[in-house]
Amino acid sequence: MKILLVGATGTLGRAVLEVLRDRGHQVVTASRKGSDHTVDILDTDSIGALYREVGPVDALACAAGPVPWLPVAELTHRHVLDGLAGKVVSQVELVRHGLATVAGSFTLITGVTSRDPLRTGSIAALANGAVEAFVRSAAVELDQRINAVSPTVFTESVEHYGDLFAGIEPVPVHRAALAYVRSIEGHQTGQVYVLD
Amino acid sequence: MKILLVGATGTLGRAVLEVLRDRGHQVVTASRKGSDHTVDILDTDSIGALYREVGPVDALACAAGPVPWLPVAELTHRHVLDGLAGKVVSQVELVRHGLATVAGSFTLITGVTSRDPLRTGSIAALANGAVEAFVRSAAVELDQRINAVSPTVFTESVEHYGDLFAGIEPVPVHRAALAYVRSIEGHQTGQVYVLD
Repeated sequence: MKILLVGATGTLGRAVLEVLRDRGHQVVTASRKGSDHTVDILDTDSIGALYREVGPVDALACAAGPVPWLPVAELTHRHVLDGLAGKVVSQVELVRHGLATVAGSFTLITGVTSRDPLRTGSIAALANGAVEAFVRSAAVELDQRINAVSPTVFTESVEHYGDLFAGIEPVPVHRAALAYVRSIEGHQTGQVYVLD
Repeated sequence: MKILLVGATGTLGRAVLEVLRDRGHQVVTASRKGSDHTVDILDTDSIGALYREVGPVDALACAAGPVPWLPVAELTHRHVLDGLAGKVVSQVELVRHGLATVAGSFTLITGVTSRDPLRTGSIAALANGAVEAFVRSAAVELDQRINAVSPTVFTESVEHYGDLFAGIEPVPVHRAALAYVRSIEGHQTGQVYVLD
C-alpha cells in the first residue's frame, strides 16, 4: 500500500515508519521538517496542499498531536485553543481534506489520558476524548475505515516525564506501531486500539 | 445553595431550573437573553464578566452547548471550530473562570453521541467526548467536584429530529434535570451521568 504518515519524526512516528516499511508498504512521510513533505498540521491550508502534492494514497496515518501539559489552575484560554488545534482540529482536518484522496483508512493518535486521568493532563484528555468519539462517530458515515491508536507512555520516553506516570507500566513503542498496522491492514472501523 | 445556571432558557435548562428551585435552591440564571444575566459563552471575556457580576456561588451548572449537525463530508473548517467553541471551549472556560468563584461543584452537559454514533453527529461526538474526558481528568486536580450529564434525546424534543434517533428510546427531560441535582447535591466527582 501507499501510506501517508504525518508526524514521522517523533518517537512514535519513527517506529510506525519502520514497521510499515518492514511490512513492504510504500510510506510517504510528512512533518514540519525532515520528511518527504513539509506540513504544518495547525494550518488547514497546509494539510490541503499536502494531499494535493502526495496524490492518491491507500491510507493516512497520523502520529503527531502536540498539546500543552499544565495544571487546570494554570491553563489560559490560549492553552485550551492550542491543545484543540494541535491534536483535535489538526486530525479532523486530516480526515476532512483526505476524504477524496485516501482510499482505505485513516488512523489517528490519541492517548491514555482520556481514560486514565493524570494531573496536568486535562488538555491531553480533552483532545484524546474528542478524537476517540469522532472516530467512533465518523466510522458510521465514511467510505473509508477510521480508527485511533491510544497508547500509554512509551518505554522509550518514560524517563522524560519524571514521576508523572508513576505506577503505570510503559509499553514499547513498537507495540503502538503494530496497532497502526492492525488499523491499516485490518478490517475494523470505529475502533480505539488501547495499549496499556 | 446558590447555583449559577448557564443556558437556562432551553428545554433542558428550563427543566433544570424548575427542579433546582423545587429543591429550595437559589438559582441565578444566565443566557444570551431572557435570563437574570446576559452571557455569550462563545466569548471568554463575557464568561469572566458573568462570574464577577454574580459573585460567589456554590455550584455552576451548564445546560448550553450548541454544535453543528452535518455529514462529515459536508463539514467545513469553520464547522469544526464552531462545534468546539460552542460546547468544548465554552464549558472549559466556565470551569477555568469559575475556579475562584464556585465553591462546590461544576456540572457540564455532554450527550449520547460520544458513545452511540449517529450520522451527522460527528461534531457533537467530538465535543461530548472532549468534555467527558476533561471532566474525568480535571476531577483529579480541582478542589471543587466536577461531573457531566450525558442524556440521549428528550421525549420533549424527539419529534424535532425526525428519524435521526430512530429506535432510540427518548428520556423525559425531567430525568436529565435530576442528574444535575445528583451532581450538585451528591458526593461524587469525575462522573458522567448517562441517561439513556
